[in-house]
Amino acid sequence: MSGRTARRRVLRLTVPAEGKPAGATARADLLAAEEPLGIRVDGTALTMTMRTPGDDIELAAGFLVSEAIVGSPGDITEIKLCDGTSCGHGDHDGLGNIADVSLAPGTAITPAARRSFMTTSACGVCGKTSIEDICALPPGALSADQTSFSPQVLAGLPGRLSEAQRVFASTGGLHAAGLFTSSGELIAIREDVGRHNAVDKLVGWAFLAGRLPLAGCALLVSGRASFELVQKAVLAGVPLLAAVSAPSSLAADLAEEAGLTLVGFLRGPSMNVYTAAQRISASA
Amino acid sequence: MSGRTARRRVLRLTVPAEGKPAGATARADLLAAEEPLGIRVDGTALTMTMRTPGDDIELAAGFLVSEAIVGSPGDITEIKLCDGTSCGHGDHDGLGNIADVSLAPGTAITPAARRSFMTTSACGVCGKTSIEDICALPPGALSADQTSFSPQVLAGLPGRLSEAQRVFASTGGLHAAGLFTSSGELIAIREDVGRHNAVDKLVGWAFLAGRLPLAGCALLVSGRASFELVQKAVLAGVPLLAAVSAPSSLAADLAEEAGLTLVGFLRGPSMNVYTAAQRISASA
Repeated sequence: MSGRTARRRVLRLTVPAEGKPAGATARADLLAAEEPLGIRVDGTALTMTMRTPGDDIELAAGFLVSEAIVGSPGDITEIKLCDGTSCGHGDHDGLGNIADVSLAPGTAITPAARRSFMTTSACGVCGKTSIEDICALPPGALSADQTSFSPQVLAGLPGRLSEAQRVFASTGGLHAAGLFTSSGELIAIREDVGRHNAVDKLVGWAFLAGRLPLAGCALLVSGRASFELVQKAVLAGVPLLAAVSAPSSLAADLAEEAGLTLVGFLRGPSMNVYTAAQRISASA
Repeated sequence: MSGRTARRRVLRLTVPAEGKPAGATARADLLAAEEPLGIRVDGTALTMTMRTPGDDIELAAGFLVSEAIVGSPGDITEIKLCDGTSCGHGDHDGLGNIADVSLAPGTAITPAARRSFMTTSACGVCGKTSIEDICALPPGALSADQTSFSPQVLAGLPGRLSEAQRVFASTGGLHAAGLFTSSGELIAIREDVGRHNAVDKLVGWAFLAGRLPLAGCALLVSGRASFELVQKAVLAGVPLLAAVSAPSSLAADLAEEAGLTLVGFLRGPSMNVYTAAQRISASA
């Protein structure tokens, strides 16, 4: 496993503007690391994801939670990391890492489920082959969670997330997902080049710590809110998902159906509440 | 097929700041549409992607180009769009659309290739099961393209891309990919909730128009540059990929190997050139 950043040479160019002359300087620059992680379950390749190295065991666990393959820590016997050679997987070169997951007896993935892992070029629908499958969350799954969140607390979350991002300042290339209490305290943060991986790492951490479902918590993502992120939030039992940028139409639709409070454009003093606004205290 | 935006109700909240009072107004808001598109090849489901409706035939074609399944327009006999019912695919509900691709004789996907379409929770590696597979681009593939790009022209591209984005202003939720000449003229633009889909739509358009390889052109993406986008650019024969935000380490590594000029942080008067800087005229 490598680090979260990688040093590369870069030529910094500036064109003449506002009276300033052109410039060209060669220097070293830190880039967000991106490397493949293969996830194997009971000896068979299940998926591969391009991720920023770090928290890989949590990523593997969170991926299985987000795919509804596991539901409690006891469903997983062991997760170990290895490179291609040490595992005897001669078909993988040293570039990548492999997370080997052993499921508890009775938790095995059915052949049908494995077949359903068709590829997707989009983030995260993760291969459900039927369009019905991807919407198969229980309606109103989160409606029992009556946690209240104040707009003042929510408005403060992006600043706390940015402060907590150790890598972002040096690379500008990592997404973050942060888990907060309803009073705005940061519980945990994870980062990745992919938003979905950052959320999977966070959910995997909570899963392995026996903290699922994440009732009473708020999940904040640094980018936009896609359908997929709503799905991950609902499966993790989080009642509120907030995004710094825009949600998609399907994200709002799924949040509505599941009873998830979806907040978008959470920037400065304002925010948009798309669904389940009864959890926002000032608007009750 | 639905539109590129969808109207949803939203509660706009503002917390007190800088002497301004709190506010709460309900209104209608336009969100970027996100819907699943299934891609079937010769009658069998190949993949499903979450995309913004529009240019779906180009998206399907571009996906097959990016996966190196097709190389010239003659490899595809027909692409038609249908919903689940009209195609007789009873396992899909009306939510989604399906692109049915018929390949020319001799262009069929092999069973091995089909099996390799394992899922990925990340964007775009699109299911190659071996880590070597995902790096299997010919080294120096683009080195014969000696097009020169000036920093001044490059610095003007993000502004032209933004101007050309018809939807962005109303939703803030769509990524754009723009194809430009080396003198900065916009050739084509495509948009999507996913960066990779926007590039696939653009590449699919060029493919169907018989314009591949895109020698002498620059490809600009509105977000960051991942490994996957570099891969798509190289397969489309574009000699320069520019991104408004950061590249990842693997994006820079693959660009180096393929001889692609990779420009990141293209904002205002400045930019970072990570690889193949000999194509940047001022730095020659």
